[in-house]
This record gives sequence, structure tokens and C-alpha cells, in this order.
Amino acid sequence: MTKIKATNITWHESHVARKDREELLHQKGFTIWFTGLPSSGKSTTAFTLEHELTKRGQLAYVLDGDNIRHGLNKNLGFTAEDREENIRRIGEVAKLFADAGFITMTSFISPYCKDRDLARQIHENNGLDFIEVFIDTPIGLCEKRDPKGLFAKARKGEIKGFTGVDDPYEVPLKPELILDTGKKSPQELVVDLIKFLTKRRLIPAPIAK
Amino acid sequence: MTKIKATNITWHESHVARKDREELLHQKGFTIWFTGLPSSGKSTTAFTLEHELTKRGQLAYVLDGDNIRHGLNKNLGFTAEDREENIRRIGEVAKLFADAGFITMTSFISPYCKDRDLARQIHENNGLDFIEVFIDTPIGLCEKRDPKGLFAKARKGEIKGFTGVDDPYEVPLKPELILDTGKKSPQELVVDLIKFLTKRRLIPAPIAK
Repeated sequence: MTKIKATNITWHESHVARKDREELLHQKGFTIWFTGLPSSGKSTTAFTLEHELTKRGQLAYVLDGDNIRHGLNKNLGFTAEDREENIRRIGEVAKLFADAGFITMTSFISPYCKDRDLARQIHENNGLDFIEVFIDTPIGLCEKRDPKGLFAKARKGEIKGFTGVDDPYEVPLKPELILDTGKKSPQELVVDLIKFLTKRRLIPAPIAK
Repeated sequence: MTKIKATNITWHESHVARKDREELLHQKGFTIWFTGLPSSGKSTTAFTLEHELTKRGQLAYVLDGDNIRHGLNKNLGFTAEDREENIRRIGEVAKLFADAGFITMTSFISPYCKDRDLARQIHENNGLDFIEVFIDTPIGLCEKRDPKGLFAKARKGEIKGFTGVDDPYEVPLKPELILDTGKKSPQELVVDLIKFLTKRRLIPAPIAK
């Protein structure tokens, strides 16, 4: 039997240092910010990378509409002001996850340069890497996919302020990576992503088998 | 050299399951919600537990005024409405961290039962344990400590709506644990906390040396 002795415990007045948590996890926290039109393939790319990283023993987490819009941001709508606050909060939460050591992925249309730049600034001001990945799927292809029939509704005017139809999507000016889903298979794109992250030393090179 | 082959990558349409991440981390995510008067010792207790858990190889993270009030919640003030939204957002972010596998700690006065109950509900609705810990420090002692001189300012009326002076603190009705900082040393309280978490099988028993 082990007795926990109070004398073994040291009193602390501040957070565990980021580097100590990174040492424990054998990885560095950072954020991959996916941006692109509705139905461009952001979430599927993020989920595939999340599964692939988990398989390699790395800790990754995807923030997406599913766990954010129904929770933290459920009191926000789709006005310009609310869209801005939506992305700001996501940027702040991603920063917390990256600070905690996670490979954090965000999967949101995030149509405006200004808002994405703010998310980047929140990270970089805290010494955290921010990788903006533009999922560059031609709008025709996004509209053809349209699994929830949202483009169709927006074209009919049943949905207002839909990105790509009656609300603008501002193409990233200096993203770290552009994934062209029109030219490569989804699997090939994730391979490209992993190569990019490895080259940047954000994830370790795979061990030869 | 290892070549990453696209064919090794499986396409995924949803999040990595919570249990898969827990398996990778060898731990279960949950939230410890510290509540108590200003200067009652919430943050010091949380930080000490965070360091102790990290020493044991467990992944823990503290959400506190430092990383929340200056970031995610910097657009909130201290009106009743803003206090409520402050705690709601913290509850949602703690849920995300617990879902991601972290031993999540929150260190906020969180003076109202209703708001703490909402945070609990957000967790329990998602199948996550929520441990409310009341730091039960007598107000006289909190006021004697008062490292930032806030009680003094509140007594003089220089700060309005200060919990314990001119804004109420609602004592938790059914907290999982009460820590009485008047009777035990801070170290002894953290020992009690660890014993409690071990008994609840939320953290593993320490390995005998």
C-alpha cells in the first residue's frame, strides 16, 4: 500500500508550463485552420487527418459545427456580427487546445480574411503555430455534392446569406497550404497534408517498418 | 525511408470516438469545477492538483481567469447577464476539454447555483463526469488574504458587484466535495482531493514504490 503524504505535494501558484505538457505528450500543440466553401470537404479532410494522427499515437481534436454550433456558439446566428464572434470564439478555443498540447483542427467555412487573420493573431501572439489550409474546391463541385441540399435552398432564396450564393467567400491570400480537391483524391490530399506537417517538424516523421 | 501511401489512409466522415482517445491517453476525461469566494484558494488548489497530476503522467488543464477572461470571454463584463454567459461558455469549453480526454479543472467564483447546474448539465448530458468542489474558506480569511486588495476596494465602494461584499455567493447545495481550507493545510486538501478522485476511479491509484 502506498500512502500519499501531504509533504510530497508542492504548492503551486501558476499553470503547468506548456513545455512540460508537451514533454509528457511527446508532441507540440498547434492549430490547423481549414477554410473553404460549404461542401468543399473541410470536415472530411479534418476527420481523416484526426483518425490518421490518432492511429500514429498523436493527440488530435477537431472543432466543427457539431461540437461548437450546438454548444459554445449556440447563442449566435448568421449576421455579420455573429459570424465574426463565431470565428473569434473558435479561434480562442483552438488556442486553448493548442496551448494544452493538442493538434487542433477547426472545420468552419470562415469566409472572411479579417476573421481568419484574427484567429491567426490569437495563436501567434501566444507563440503557437497556425496553419491555414484552404480547401480549394470549385464551387460547381461543392454545389453538385451539396449533401444537405443547402445550395439548392439558397438558390431558391429559402436560405439567406449562404456563403458562395448570396454571401461572399474571401479566398485566403497567404494560406500555408492549398488543397485542390478537384485534381487529387481525398486520400492523396491527406498524404500531402501529412508531408507538409512532417516537413515543418510539427509532427514526427513516421517510423520505417 | 518510409513512403506514405495514400492507400493506407481510410476516409472518415466523423470524429475519433471518445473511447479511442481515452485508450491512447490511458485516462478518462472529466471536469473538476472549483467554486468559492474570491481569494478562497480555488486557483492555487487547481494549479497544485494540475502539477501533481502532470507529475503522475496524467494530462490536466486548468481554465481560469488568466486564460479565459483575457481571451474567450474578454467581451463580457460583470452584469448578471454577462456573468451567466461567462459561466455558460466556460462550461461548454470544459465539456470540450473533457470530451477530448483531459482532466479539466475550472477555477472561477461561479457564485450562482443555476449557472453551476447548467455547467453540470452540459457535462452529464454528454456522458461526462462533473465534480463540483466547494472551496469553503470563511469570508474573514478570504478578506484577510486579499492579495490584490479587492475586498478592501469593494468595502470602500470602489468596486461594485463584488461577490461576498455586495453580490451574493450561493453556497453549493450538493457539491461532490467540500474542502475546508480553514481546518487543513493546502497540501492536505490536495491529498483529500486525490483520494476522492482515486476512490471514484476517475484517476488510477498510485503505483507503490
